Amino acid sequence: MRVSRVGRSGEMGNTTVVNDGRGSQGEAAHEAADDGHGAARGERVPLVVVSHRGPVRFDRDAGGTRRVERSGGGLVTALLATLPTLDRSRFDPIWLCAAATDEDRAVAAEQGTEPIEVDGVPCPLRLLAPDPEEHERFYASFSNPMLWFIQHELWGLATEPVIGRAEHDAYRHGYVPVNQHFADAVHTEIERRGARRPVVMVHDYHFYLVPGLLRSLHPDARLHTFVHVPWPQADAWRVLPAEVRGALLHGLLGNDVVGFHTHRYARNFLLSCQELLDMPIDLRDMVARLGDREIAATWSPLSVDLTRLEEEASRSPVPKRRREIVESRREHLLVRVDRSDPSKNIVRGFLAYDLLLERHPELRGRVTFLALIPPSRQDVPQYARYLLEIRETADAINERHGRDGWEPIDLRIEENFPLALAAYQEYDALLVNSVADGLNLVAKEGVALNERDGMLVLSENAGAYEELGAFSLAVNPFDIVQQADALHEAIITEPRRRRGLLTTARQVVEHNDPARWLDLQLEALERHTS
Amino acid sequence: MRVSRVGRSGEMGNTTVVNDGRGSQGEAAHEAADDGHGAARGERVPLVVVSHRGPVRFDRDAGGTRRVERSGGGLVTALLATLPTLDRSRFDPIWLCAAATDEDRAVAAEQGTEPIEVDGVPCPLRLLAPDPEEHERFYASFSNPMLWFIQHELWGLATEPVIGRAEHDAYRHGYVPVNQHFADAVHTEIERRGARRPVVMVHDYHFYLVPGLLRSLHPDARLHTFVHVPWPQADAWRVLPAEVRGALLHGLLGNDVVGFHTHRYARNFLLSCQELLDMPIDLRDMVARLGDREIAATWSPLSVDLTRLEEEASRSPVPKRRREIVESRREHLLVRVDRSDPSKNIVRGFLAYDLLLERHPELRGRVTFLALIPPSRQDVPQYARYLLEIRETADAINERHGRDGWEPIDLRIEENFPLALAAYQEYDALLVNSVADGLNLVAKEGVALNERDGMLVLSENAGAYEELGAFSLAVNPFDIVQQADALHEAIITEPRRRRGLLTTARQVVEHNDPARWLDLQLEALERHTS
Repeated sequence: MRVSRVGRSGEMGNTTVVNDGRGSQGEAAHEAADDGHGAARGERVPLVVVSHRGPVRFDRDAGGTRRVERSGGGLVTALLATLPTLDRSRFDPIWLCAAATDEDRAVAAEQGTEPIEVDGVPCPLRLLAPDPEEHERFYASFSNPMLWFIQHELWGLATEPVIGRAEHDAYRHGYVPVNQHFADAVHTEIERRGARRPVVMVHDYHFYLVPGLLRSLHPDARLHTFVHVPWPQADAWRVLPAEVRGALLHGLLGNDVVGFHTHRYARNFLLSCQELLDMPIDLRDMVARLGDREIAATWSPLSVDLTRLEEEASRSPVPKRRREIVESRREHLLVRVDRSDPSKNIVRGFLAYDLLLERHPELRGRVTFLALIPPSRQDVPQYARYLLEIRETADAINERHGRDGWEPIDLRIEENFPLALAAYQEYDALLVNSVADGLNLVAKEGVALNERDGMLVLSENAGAYEELGAFSLAVNPFDIVQQADALHEAIITEPRRRRGLLTTARQVVEHNDPARWLDLQLEALERHTS
Repeated sequence: MRVSRVGRSGEMGNTTVVNDGRGSQGEAAHEAADDGHGAARGERVPLVVVSHRGPVRFDRDAGGTRRVERSGGGLVTALLATLPTLDRSRFDPIWLCAAATDEDRAVAAEQGTEPIEVDGVPCPLRLLAPDPEEHERFYASFSNPMLWFIQHELWGLATEPVIGRAEHDAYRHGYVPVNQHFADAVHTEIERRGARRPVVMVHDYHFYLVPGLLRSLHPDARLHTFVHVPWPQADAWRVLPAEVRGALLHGLLGNDVVGFHTHRYARNFLLSCQELLDMPIDLRDMVARLGDREIAATWSPLSVDLTRLEEEASRSPVPKRRREIVESRREHLLVRVDRSDPSKNIVRGFLAYDLLLERHPELRGRVTFLALIPPSRQDVPQYARYLLEIRETADAINERHGRDGWEPIDLRIEENFPLALAAYQEYDALLVNSVADGLNLVAKEGVALNERDGMLVLSENAGAYEELGAFSLAVNPFDIVQQADALHEAIITEPRRRRGLLTTARQVVEHNDPARWLDLQLEALERHTS
């Protein structure tokens, strides 16, 4: 057996070498330890992690050799950062995720557990390849946009959504079978290991049904879901047919613990159980009661992997990008970094900047708004329209205020993480004005890397607000007057206050590291299942 | 002094005769009784009613004589129906409302209390004419659409609303001064009467600040607001700047009792106080605590005035309209009656009907959908767009399924209450599928008048659902598949079950009459202020 290793070489930590890739039936160590009824012999506890996106993607190079590349995104990055901190003498981890590439599907078809390593840490992986049509309905019709829009309260309910036959099918013949497929795979992994009281940690809105499906098979399992998006108030769920919203909630209630980024979401979740399912809840102990079971709602905001982030920020081509920014910048640099998702509120952010320039003509020519917008989900009509509106709004503002070679908004619609890292280091004000946002890692990454005592202007509807609100300028995402005022305040705030706020905010981000994030979840699970 | 009398003659109860109209300083009876400190002498308690729309409108006929005409609308009709039931030996009522016509403003300028009678019952009235520009901002910019859209959750938050300078002005220089103007007028009426412990009953979303303004002036006053629109969950209020939503809530918390149509809204109100103001609440006793005061949230759904409704339905031209319907109808008659308000969900209702015809070709040619849609607020862009979409959807469906002289949807975009009454009598199924709806009087009026054992298909998001849900076919307003199924079930349900449901539903409507609606509010006020 050869182990696939994914390390840090290459620009932005992408790819490296690899084995030739026929998957085995798992790590040798694990196979030796888990033959029998683990728990009875004081052995390692199986820890099954489930997420839609996996830690790596497989591919073949021109010569036909299998390659493996680390994936991106906040969820995967944070989970990978927890890997080295996991006590392997206690836990025997396995990560289940969906095949994303053709080569992923080939790996999945081999039915093995891939014995890969990421940054030198073993990361046992099993790729699953659900039926493509079911997966399409699951992913492109139900999870996105339906659940995403509900949880970020993006529907304009007067006319959207229309729950028609396609939407019913997307749930019944997409979300349900894919969840079943994953639950079956978790079951197989648990059975294979044989140990009692396995731990299963499911991630995000793709798999709300999985815990419910597992609970009936494994009454003693310790089940945890972490929800990475906002949990809206109960009425937002009324968009779905009663039996669908009921099934999703009951799926989650298969867990012992449901974790969120913030107290507000955890509370909304319990109130949803009360209002939509008529269940008793306790908002002091933060539990819902279902028969003789108690389900806890907890909160522990996702972390950023600071070590990795700082390393990436120091590597080529970030310093070059930074020099370019320094050479072209004006006196004040405003920055935003957001996918072109309607939840990110990019257009209102530009309108606020427009108002700032109108009210403070003295700033014209002295400030630049660098907006880094990786395009997102352009196959979804709402997203395509939104990106168009972003462009048009920026163009109109540049037309209105620009002069003598000064472009008020430097709009970059591109995926460019090195430039984002450079912009984090250089901003004077970072605008995060999301309409709704599970956490918002940009706020944390910016605070972690900034070197100019920059101010964070932060939406009160971003999950990060519970951690960083006190050390930022809070804004209502709908109120462009307040946002314009906050941008102005960010610019004129005196240096000592700026430094104090940034220092404290950074301490918060450092304190809540990936190890702590995982520990909080495992402790909660321990507390509520003992 | 001559008294203006508004009676029931004339088509649809409109207009009648009138005095020549110079207002006096109030009724003789009231003047005699209220000179001094009322309560100490066991006298009548002043009962000040505040609503934006008044019970009547003044006008001048061609000859220059002042005329008075009864107003329409559910709120005014219900309040007028409570007038004869009010114990005048206990209460001394006065109704304050906003001038709507030029002649109203002339009456307001006379500074008098108009001694009018409606249907033979004295209805002391004071018209107020706030500054026109302030009123425009108050009404057309802040109350509608801002509060209306928030409370019906109609905003597509990704892009709407943008709270800019105009919106801030609409609140600060519109809603605030108009509320102050009304609070001052209430204060004047209370002072003029001199009695202690006056009762003030404020209606609807136009006057959330009034109770707070009065509370500081009259600590002993018994203050009540009835909210006629839905009260959404706390997060819907986060659209407004924190200081604005805080001021609106604190305004309402000046009351002793805040009344709603449903338990769900009352609960949402208390949870809003907890979540947005961090106030202690008790969901068992349904109170919020503010310092040493307790504010109760109660619910008592608005009534329809059955006597009046039945009388109107028997009068010309309703029977003629009814004959026309009977002559032109097909086997099954579906009906809806709704203003062209996006909250009413007219387009999705048509899409559900389209699906019904597609799935049940046997119904083609045998069913007609009569949709009576009075146009609403066509100066508001969202409303104009929505009406266009209504027309286009109906046209497309008629084009797709119509044949041999059969028009699947008979769309009438017009104000035609006689036709609505005739349609109520004749429907086999009445569709009420609102996205959100404070109560929905159409459901109650339909049930009250129907003579064909018609079925009510009722949105679970309409306030009337708490009363009538058990006797109707419940639908999720977003789910057109379920709505199509419900329309089909309504058509095929066997007669005995149809009759049973209609009979019970009608009993509910009859039981909860206007006298009871008012009594419940006065009792709640008594209970929470003694």
